[in-house]
Amino acid sequence: MKDVQALTFDVFGTVVDWRSSITREGEALGQAKGITHVDWTKFADAWRGMYQPAMNRVRSGERPWTKLDDLHRESLDDLLGEFKISGLTEMEIDHLNRAWHRLDPWPDAVPGLTRLRRGFILATLSNGNVALMVNMARRAGLPWDAVLGAEVAHHYKPQPEAYLTTAAMLGLRPEQCMMVAAHGNDLLAASRCGFRTAYVPRPAEHGPGGKVDGGHDGKFDVVANDFVDLAVQLGQ
Amino acid sequence: MKDVQALTFDVFGTVVDWRSSITREGEALGQAKGITHVDWTKFADAWRGMYQPAMNRVRSGERPWTKLDDLHRESLDDLLGEFKISGLTEMEIDHLNRAWHRLDPWPDAVPGLTRLRRGFILATLSNGNVALMVNMARRAGLPWDAVLGAEVAHHYKPQPEAYLTTAAMLGLRPEQCMMVAAHGNDLLAASRCGFRTAYVPRPAEHGPGGKVDGGHDGKFDVVANDFVDLAVQLGQ
Repeated sequence: MKDVQALTFDVFGTVVDWRSSITREGEALGQAKGITHVDWTKFADAWRGMYQPAMNRVRSGERPWTKLDDLHRESLDDLLGEFKISGLTEMEIDHLNRAWHRLDPWPDAVPGLTRLRRGFILATLSNGNVALMVNMARRAGLPWDAVLGAEVAHHYKPQPEAYLTTAAMLGLRPEQCMMVAAHGNDLLAASRCGFRTAYVPRPAEHGPGGKVDGGHDGKFDVVANDFVDLAVQLGQ
Repeated sequence: MKDVQALTFDVFGTVVDWRSSITREGEALGQAKGITHVDWTKFADAWRGMYQPAMNRVRSGERPWTKLDDLHRESLDDLLGEFKISGLTEMEIDHLNRAWHRLDPWPDAVPGLTRLRRGFILATLSNGNVALMVNMARRAGLPWDAVLGAEVAHHYKPQPEAYLTTAAMLGLRPEQCMMVAAHGNDLLAASRCGFRTAYVPRPAEHGPGGKVDGGHDGKFDVVANDFVDLAVQLGQ
């Protein structure tokens, strides 16, 4: 653990609350456009539900590398039909697609990251593309030292290249990196690449009564309640 | 010019003063190790002199992608012989090689970048590798939103892929990016890719009486005395 020099972060769900943010963005659009028949929370869940299948077509090699903004847009175009949302201009659809650039951080994220940054290099290791992560960070005040991950590696997590390329770009061996995530599968994949792991549960990710990614007792190097607790446990 | 959303920066010479920093690092090593026969300024110039030839072997395809830390190390190993420097441990040689991670910014760099960041995305577009840029930024307080450039593109400037990949990763068209550099050839290459250009001369880069990269009147969109002046000219 003393070798750890960088913390690499999952972002959607771990750093930011995608569900309430996408719902908020949808509701704002609905109000502006007089769209009254849509349950925007269901819309957010449906959009997120298309995330893994869309990445799977890239992971499998069925299609060439495609960044997440473009996958989100393809899913969105389908969803607009399913939810019978019409009358949006191209600019409005693009703005809605970029709602993923405007996700709000969990309340502990910025204070926790700010403390953690005193002692560690902080990098994103997300499936979100660089522009998405940069725009999100500027809006939310997330103090990343580097925005890395899937787009830079041209591989989506949990493929090992995503983790290994990120460590290599940081000039570190995998065991000098600690993956921080609210999702066990992400941490297990990082661990198989040699990363240290920190599990930070986010029980509200899927909303009240939503599924909770749990049952990971003893599997990870650190378990923290939130990012401030993680900073304390890592001596910052 | 109103379309510009990101400023992309050359770093060595433009943001940081590599020559006096490498000299300082060499002198510190010399004192610690009792090496008295070396002119460390000449050493710094010789090391930097091996920079373009080393990258040329990658640009030409003579050798596969090799990050700058590794090119620097190969040059350093040669230089230690040429300057008859012996008795260094592997750890000391590695520490000296990473002197490039510890370069000092020009005095206007941090205040200028801090102002510029209010209005623009700031990204490195350097031939330095990501780890080098991240470590430099943490030490010097350089407020980058993203560390991009040659290593991410696997092409050294002035090859067009370095510029075009950086713009693409920022989610921007080339004309939405402005390259900032003290070197005309870098700006001309960026301009050929569609970037806007800002020339910030650094007459002290090569020391007193050293060569000055000048004669660029009228070629670039902006000419600024330093980064604070650049911020003023760009309305920040």
